[in-house]
Amino acid sequence: MEKVVINTEFGDKMSGNIEETYNRIKDTINHTPVMISSTLNKTVGAQCFCKMESFQRTGSFKFRGAYNAISCLSPEQKSKGVITHSSGNHAQALALASKMAGIKAVIVMPENSPKIKVAATKGYGAEVVFCGTKPEDRENTTNELIKKKGYTLVHSNNDLDVIDGQGTASYELIKETGDLDYIFVPCGGGGLLSGTAFATKNLCPNAKVIGVEPKNADDAFRSFKDGVRYLVKNPNTIADGLRTSLGSNTFEIIRNNVDDIITVTEEEIVEAMEFLWERMKLVVEPSGAVSLAGVLSKKKNIKSKKIGIIISGGNIDLNDFFELFRKKIEKETS
Amino acid sequence: MEKVVINTEFGDKMSGNIEETYNRIKDTINHTPVMISSTLNKTVGAQCFCKMESFQRTGSFKFRGAYNAISCLSPEQKSKGVITHSSGNHAQALALASKMAGIKAVIVMPENSPKIKVAATKGYGAEVVFCGTKPEDRENTTNELIKKKGYTLVHSNNDLDVIDGQGTASYELIKETGDLDYIFVPCGGGGLLSGTAFATKNLCPNAKVIGVEPKNADDAFRSFKDGVRYLVKNPNTIADGLRTSLGSNTFEIIRNNVDDIITVTEEEIVEAMEFLWERMKLVVEPSGAVSLAGVLSKKKNIKSKKIGIIISGGNIDLNDFFELFRKKIEKETS
Repeated sequence: MEKVVINTEFGDKMSGNIEETYNRIKDTINHTPVMISSTLNKTVGAQCFCKMESFQRTGSFKFRGAYNAISCLSPEQKSKGVITHSSGNHAQALALASKMAGIKAVIVMPENSPKIKVAATKGYGAEVVFCGTKPEDRENTTNELIKKKGYTLVHSNNDLDVIDGQGTASYELIKETGDLDYIFVPCGGGGLLSGTAFATKNLCPNAKVIGVEPKNADDAFRSFKDGVRYLVKNPNTIADGLRTSLGSNTFEIIRNNVDDIITVTEEEIVEAMEFLWERMKLVVEPSGAVSLAGVLSKKKNIKSKKIGIIISGGNIDLNDFFELFRKKIEKETS
Repeated sequence: MEKVVINTEFGDKMSGNIEETYNRIKDTINHTPVMISSTLNKTVGAQCFCKMESFQRTGSFKFRGAYNAISCLSPEQKSKGVITHSSGNHAQALALASKMAGIKAVIVMPENSPKIKVAATKGYGAEVVFCGTKPEDRENTTNELIKKKGYTLVHSNNDLDVIDGQGTASYELIKETGDLDYIFVPCGGGGLLSGTAFATKNLCPNAKVIGVEPKNADDAFRSFKDGVRYLVKNPNTIADGLRTSLGSNTFEIIRNNVDDIITVTEEEIVEAMEFLWERMKLVVEPSGAVSLAGVLSKKKNIKSKKIGIIISGGNIDLNDFFELFRKKIEKETS
């Protein structure tokens, strides 16, 4: 039996609180379904349970952390509003969470962000502030606005309340499946992986928590092996949600509470996506399929085990597909 | 309150038996999830419950009817095996149902059937026999084999046990949601619509059962209005599962037990598909989205009502999409 270490630095704040966190947000988050597939079980040779965060509000797990962080604010902080820099799923999650809590949200995005992401974030009622495209630009813009307006920063992965909220996905999963032997989780900035590690080690201490990262953005993998926090810069991976580097907090939490980190190739990510779409009839984004890619890669000895797989989100631009589809119809029915 | 008429010709066989049918097959079929979406409810102005038969075994509701029909065979019939003509979802459903029941299945398919469908049917262990491409060819080939080998025909929509089995989708739905005001169902050969009508009128007699058909294959719509069974020949619709005409039995059941049939355009079908994929993160085939297209078309006065929507299947060829996707990755990561 492996020794379970709950990191002491964050232990007081984080461990043992997962039930409390869940109760805080359970009436607002979607209790997402756990999907199983006999074909998947046969392929892997194990019992697999896919926790489908694509069905979470705003299409990803990010809503859990965002809503928890907002729920933990003081009345004064709430009255001033929140801010974050993100052009991904956290932007939309914080926008909707703020709207539902009736507080102001400001999202800082690079000026070259995809229009569809900007529109979605505005659609949830947030104010979008554009910044330059250099990595430091968004932090500078955010910090200036915090100074000027008194907003509270809700960081996408390094905020402890955000991390705590992300853990409720595995909380729901384990409550439904009972004890697991393994749980596979996509890793980008490490918020989901950190939250999952805390929740899992609290609920079923013997379960091994495995982070899965694209080989093309393997900062967490290398940081975990070497015990040094490396940063990646503009990594080239289709899993756009996992291009971020670990934060200072997530690095500490992960090195102390996660059992292993493995990497998968771009082709392995697409194959996992294909499996989810074709066999399981689930729309999943590339980042969301990375955990399944890790399971299918057979890098861990999971034969005959009971495995949780966090499928983190389903936000993918389908315009190309439907354009192709409409052309096909035109051709066929003309 | 509308008068409920259970057709007397089939009444003895069909009505009141839905519970018995469900108990017969419940341990083998998937109890498919009911999905809800606040965006959908807002768009429609009603409470919508989508019964996701895309998650049924073999990817469509067809498994329910096929397995029920096989379960109703005599030991002698089972020992000889079953036969059907289909190149669609019924072929795969009967193939798997037979395999699970340990009996032989022969599927007659036109020689120009898509390779992917032939492979899937063979993959479930059925024997595939090819026939000519004229409509009469498949019936002739099937009848010859029945004469020669003593197989039992399990027709895709006109078989009463098949119809009865299809009704278990709405049975599960209503057991979960409670009484409904409306239930929308795709209509091709009419098996699912007939089964739904029987089950629904038994469980909540006041619910209105609405069949939805592609405008480009509107034989059921016209047959229902005129009280005469029309046949369509090679209709041009993207909803390939709904190109079949009503059978003699389904025509009788539908005209006596269904409240209305409405039609939707090809563009309305694609828009409903887009909604399911993009907003609800569900892979649904065109035929499966036709019921939602009917709801979104607002042809029925469903404001503030409680509505069941049978999403019948999720089998769609995704090769084009993933080819496009892989090209995009190559370009982006090279």
